[in-house]
Amino acid sequence: MSTFGHVFRVTTYGESHCKSVGCIVDGVPPGMSLTESDIQPQLSRRRPGQSKLSTPRNEKDRVEIQSGIEFNKTLGTPIAMLIRNEDHRPHDYSDMDNYPRPSHADYTYMEKYGLKASSGGGRASARETIGRVAAGAIAEKFLAQVSNVEIVGFVSQIGSIKMNRDTFDPHFHHLLNTITREKVDSAGFIRCPDAAIAGEMVKEIEKYRGQKDSIGGVVTCVIKNVPAGLGEPCFDKLEALLAHAMLSIPASKGFEIGSGFSGVSKPGSQHNDLFIFDEETQKLRTKTNNSGGVQGGISNGENIYFSVAFKSVATIAQEQETVTYDGKPGVLAAKGRHDPAVTPRAIPIVEAMAALVLADALLIQKSRDFARSVTH
Amino acid sequence: MSTFGHVFRVTTYGESHCKSVGCIVDGVPPGMSLTESDIQPQLSRRRPGQSKLSTPRNEKDRVEIQSGIEFNKTLGTPIAMLIRNEDHRPHDYSDMDNYPRPSHADYTYMEKYGLKASSGGGRASARETIGRVAAGAIAEKFLAQVSNVEIVGFVSQIGSIKMNRDTFDPHFHHLLNTITREKVDSAGFIRCPDAAIAGEMVKEIEKYRGQKDSIGGVVTCVIKNVPAGLGEPCFDKLEALLAHAMLSIPASKGFEIGSGFSGVSKPGSQHNDLFIFDEETQKLRTKTNNSGGVQGGISNGENIYFSVAFKSVATIAQEQETVTYDGKPGVLAAKGRHDPAVTPRAIPIVEAMAALVLADALLIQKSRDFARSVTH
Amino acid sequence: MSTFGHVFRVTTYGESHCKSVGCIVDGVPPGMSLTESDIQPQLSRRRPGQSKLSTPRNEKDRVEIQSGIEFNKTLGTPIAMLIRNEDHRPHDYSDMDNYPRPSHADYTYMEKYGLKASSGGGRASARETIGRVAAGAIAEKFLAQVSNVEIVGFVSQIGSIKMNRDTFDPHFHHLLNTITREKVDSAGFIRCPDAAIAGEMVKEIEKYRGQKDSIGGVVTCVIKNVPAGLGEPCFDKLEALLAHAMLSIPASKGFEIGSGFSGVSKPGSQHNDLFIFDEETQKLRTKTNNSGGVQGGISNGENIYFSVAFKSVATIAQEQETVTYDGKPGVLAAKGRHDPAVTPRAIPIVEAMAALVLADALLIQKSRDFARSVTH
Amino acid sequence: MSTFGHVFRVTTYGESHCKSVGCIVDGVPPGMSLTESDIQPQLSRRRPGQSKLSTPRNEKDRVEIQSGIEFNKTLGTPIAMLIRNEDHRPHDYSDMDNYPRPSHADYTYMEKYGLKASSGGGRASARETIGRVAAGAIAEKFLAQVSNVEIVGFVSQIGSIKMNRDTFDPHFHHLLNTITREKVDSAGFIRCPDAAIAGEMVKEIEKYRGQKDSIGGVVTCVIKNVPAGLGEPCFDKLEALLAHAMLSIPASKGFEIGSGFSGVSKPGSQHNDLFIFDEETQKLRTKTNNSGGVQGGISNGENIYFSVAFKSVATIAQEQETVTYDGKPGVLAAKGRHDPAVTPRAIPIVEAMAALVLADALLIQKSRDFARSVTH
Repeated sequence: MSTFGHVFRVTTYGESHCKSVGCIVDGVPPGMSLTESDIQPQLSRRRPGQSKLSTPRNEKDRVEIQSGIEFNKTLGTPIAMLIRNEDHRPHDYSDMDNYPRPSHADYTYMEKYGLKASSGGGRASARETIGRVAAGAIAEKFLAQVSNVEIVGFVSQIGSIKMNRDTFDPHFHHLLNTITREKVDSAGFIRCPDAAIAGEMVKEIEKYRGQKDSIGGVVTCVIKNVPAGLGEPCFDKLEALLAHAMLSIPASKGFEIGSGFSGVSKPGSQHNDLFIFDEETQKLRTKTNNSGGVQGGISNGENIYFSVAFKSVATIAQEQETVTYDGKPGVLAAKGRHDPAVTPRAIPIVEAMAALVLADALLIQKSRDFARSVTH
Repeated sequence: MSTFGHVFRVTTYGESHCKSVGCIVDGVPPGMSLTESDIQPQLSRRRPGQSKLSTPRNEKDRVEIQSGIEFNKTLGTPIAMLIRNEDHRPHDYSDMDNYPRPSHADYTYMEKYGLKASSGGGRASARETIGRVAAGAIAEKFLAQVSNVEIVGFVSQIGSIKMNRDTFDPHFHHLLNTITREKVDSAGFIRCPDAAIAGEMVKEIEKYRGQKDSIGGVVTCVIKNVPAGLGEPCFDKLEALLAHAMLSIPASKGFEIGSGFSGVSKPGSQHNDLFIFDEETQKLRTKTNNSGGVQGGISNGENIYFSVAFKSVATIAQEQETVTYDGKPGVLAAKGRHDPAVTPRAIPIVEAMAALVLADALLIQKSRDFARSVTH
Repeated sequence: MSTFGHVFRVTTYGESHCKSVGCIVDGVPPGMSLTESDIQPQLSRRRPGQSKLSTPRNEKDRVEIQSGIEFNKTLGTPIAMLIRNEDHRPHDYSDMDNYPRPSHADYTYMEKYGLKASSGGGRASARETIGRVAAGAIAEKFLAQVSNVEIVGFVSQIGSIKMNRDTFDPHFHHLLNTITREKVDSAGFIRCPDAAIAGEMVKEIEKYRGQKDSIGGVVTCVIKNVPAGLGEPCFDKLEALLAHAMLSIPASKGFEIGSGFSGVSKPGSQHNDLFIFDEETQKLRTKTNNSGGVQGGISNGENIYFSVAFKSVATIAQEQETVTYDGKPGVLAAKGRHDPAVTPRAIPIVEAMAALVLADALLIQKSRDFARSVTH
Repeated sequence: MSTFGHVFRVTTYGESHCKSVGCIVDGVPPGMSLTESDIQPQLSRRRPGQSKLSTPRNEKDRVEIQSGIEFNKTLGTPIAMLIRNEDHRPHDYSDMDNYPRPSHADYTYMEKYGLKASSGGGRASARETIGRVAAGAIAEKFLAQVSNVEIVGFVSQIGSIKMNRDTFDPHFHHLLNTITREKVDSAGFIRCPDAAIAGEMVKEIEKYRGQKDSIGGVVTCVIKNVPAGLGEPCFDKLEALLAHAMLSIPASKGFEIGSGFSGVSKPGSQHNDLFIFDEETQKLRTKTNNSGGVQGGISNGENIYFSVAFKSVATIAQEQETVTYDGKPGVLAAKGRHDPAVTPRAIPIVEAMAALVLADALLIQKSRDFARSVTH
């Protein structure tokens, strides 16, 4: 369904050829200052056409807040936002419409809904994610006010070009501790904070563009200053909610938190995060953070970090031998120019989904905190 | 929270030192034959003490159905099941209780709930998963009746010993097509269907056992005969629900579907699953299956396969230098014998969670099918 | 929260002084013909200014579909709809803003949210119901296609002027069997199908208008051609969902189904609905229908009928001795002209909420039907 | 479905002929002292066989807590409770099983599930309510600790014998302010606090018992000391949640809050609850309380009071001319002794459902309070 969250909740709508896309955000705290300028930056970071590396279409994607604020303050009521589609006419039929595009959602939408939208896969359109980003910006603003929560995503892999994301390496943790959204963006649209690797990534993308091909990547994301105690055993563990959120993003194929897949080969004696006492905060902390900030499904106050794998874009200008919906063989090649690597643009979406998970988990935990204060 | 699913839904309860653990399964179809013997096999596969490789404690874990059946047929009403805990007295206090066990949930439960259960992490106890497995067995039985859905998990990695799980390799797909639960179990308790690798895995585990250490692993799971159309855009994509389910299992740190993390380095021209027409079924199929049976969040009728990473067990008999809840440094070492690798026992849990996701998605999709039949 | 329903689900937004009000309807079946002209009639029936009996403000309330349709057919994706507010500037401050209006939501919104919107009670504004009515129109269209479901509300009481709604009276059941929305509207804006009583009701309203006062009323609603089997034991009984829906409408204070409150004085020997065999349909029916079409929380195929009590409008032009937020005594009197009786305009809202409940229950039941067909 | 609530949530199971009935309560605050003796009193009040007025069957209904407590303190984890059924064998078939009992759930369960349980209506059995009462007792204990919330139900009508429940009458409000559970029970099992009327009610019940008939009644319930701010606009208004809860109780046919159905004939000038300033609490209060403690769907701090209508019991020993499932006419008469009036026993169920609604609403509101404290 198109609703995510429980106490802080977003519902999105829209596909690529309708009048507008947008969302309703419910459960936004009252009295928070909020204008469209709080929302627009992340929308602009998500937008295509930011560089020659991405698609040259220039979508404007201006958000218009419809409800829930007065005098630039939230009312506590639902905030509806819409972003107009530039081209909202259903598209003209062409021969290519006879083909379900390989690794797109055309075929599965036909199986599920029995029809084919202009946008092929309907809500599988990347424009669906605009509502998420708009909602996430509100969640982020709230989280920052609670405890300076900071959410920073960056590109850690494009094709075979990888940054080190070894959780057992102190350099990786130093990077997580010091990275900011500004540093990420200063790398240009590739959004990889390691300048040397960023350069190689750009070359990797150019190579596939030259071949009329596309390539995948990995977004790594760190969340700082998260209070301990967030996440609800046993099915709504914080990492389970994050995994749900991330795998709901189009083209994502994997999620790992903390040491993730590479951690399975480390023995417990190395993997365990031993406790130390932090004099400054007078609280326990962990010496290492292989857990990724979550233990037993509950945040422990350390940095939360995770990675999300995105497959290569399905739309390529190369010819592909495939069949029509009716099973007739033929050759399909996408027309026009297409973005050979969308991973950098996925960053604000990953950040938005992380913010939505956290805002909801935090509000729920605050009710637990209250209850505990009464019964203890 | 402790409830999972919408139309087919399980709620679980229980920790390691209470009277019983169990669950309520709601939305089970009426008229289905069901006895405890349908539930017990997966519970027994989950149980500790199955081999010298795992912990020698012998939990009996006998399920007792409380409600929802008459004359061995389901009534359509909730099915409650309970499994008694052999030892349900709160344990005696010892010095070790002063320490939050590293990479366990003791510390985060204390942060969230302000107390320490005998079981330390309360619901983070592995016994919590018994209710899931019992519920999953019912879901599986239903799915098998719908379309012979078959769910088979196996160990594809222990520590650094890996099976090939390259999605671009036809041998991997042959394995997925032919594997059965019987073949997996015939490999012994290591549950790896490749005999040579299984032998190495056993050695790997023995090595860490000898070092009073532990080691992680990966479970790969295939789901066969899934109807096309399952999964609800945009937040409840089928892979998002699976990821949520898998990351809610204790000790899991990662999830990938189809090509997953390794797929990001394959260009679109190789990654795209081209369509072919299947004369036998008179339907489209895909030539390859890098998508893992899901496109645009909706099942396409091909095998669904995914992998789940499990970290090494946190409880080790080695001494660990850590601190007490109060911050006093000291040395902690687990007493008794402990399972050095729980990954093989995670298989029925992974299968159960997959079954719960699918049963719910299938029931929801059947209402969509009906609606579409009316309006088309 | 602002979301209602599970598989067929609406989320609404908007208050009286923002840019627009509206909703997102999720789970709408694909392939259904739908245009704004399907939505507008019920919006127009809800609108103020329909007669001299109601408020003379002339809101236009034109719906604009934003998403989810192409070539006038639904896509199966969420349908967003918006209706612009004519006056969307936050209003100018006046002395009256110092007073929480008695029996309005001003005070409780202040307690909950800590602020005062221009609209006083924020989402307690009657404009909030526009999104419900728009969504309900889609649900109704779907239900009509499934089994000619027909939902007809009418005014059965204004102040002390009552129609007979005695469930033990055959005339009442004849009325329920034969009433149509056309007949209701042909009574003029009072929407009471008994001409004599309608006349008295008009006089009752005029009396209170003359006294600068207001008066309440009762809407009775019948739903015909509902398939048997709808409703989910035990907490989501069909009457429980209807009661939830109706008591969520502003100003409603009571709900009764079937014999309701007056039925408590009838003994079981009279109240029980004996079964008869219907030769035409070859199914059982009930001789009487004191149950109101629902038994054990599940529809039995008979007419569902229920009544909803609405209190008198809180805004009156009479002077009221009350206090400011700060506790200072004073006199408050509403300026302008106000609707002395909103009950007739509540009809499309009651009908919409009934349609939303039924569409959701029906879709869920269709998944139950499928499951049962497999397991039996 | 069998789950109710969001952050404080109960899931129930069981019907009349299975091994046990019970529930899982999730979201119970940690550190609260809790033993079976906190649960048993309300279960005993619900139990049949309390007087000659009710059925002489003597069910023991002893609760056994399965999980979620240690050393008589809650852990914050789910609390499972079970109550064994004395007779859990499916019953022997008899001729009467050919008949769907009039105004029972036999027919609708057959329509929905395609089968007939021993208990006829499966979960429509009154034993289903045991889990609710057990869960409600925990909710009540928590609410009492938060703000001395007190929930007291009483019988205000049996058949045609009525107590005054006129919301405009100060005597009624005095009763609401002073009534306690002890006073209600001191009236004997009729549970009507007006001794004279209670006597007449007993005679009314005896009359119907003598006629092998049954009779309905009304439970009125008051909730004192509820904090202001509870309830979530717009669909989860507090009265909507209460109505949902009450109409989910077997045999209930109506719900009204505050002035309810009789309030529709009072003009706004009388119905409006004018504000006054309370020197003691330094807060606003209302002079009257026709609203029933809820305005705009949110509690205002005044007493919440509502009434629930229960129809006469469907099982009567009189002969009823009806038909079999196959449509063959015949005569049905219940054997054995049956309770002619269950309304007094409905009181702990009404109280339990009210407690479940409030505990959940309160926990959600506490997260709103926190959010507001951050953003203001």
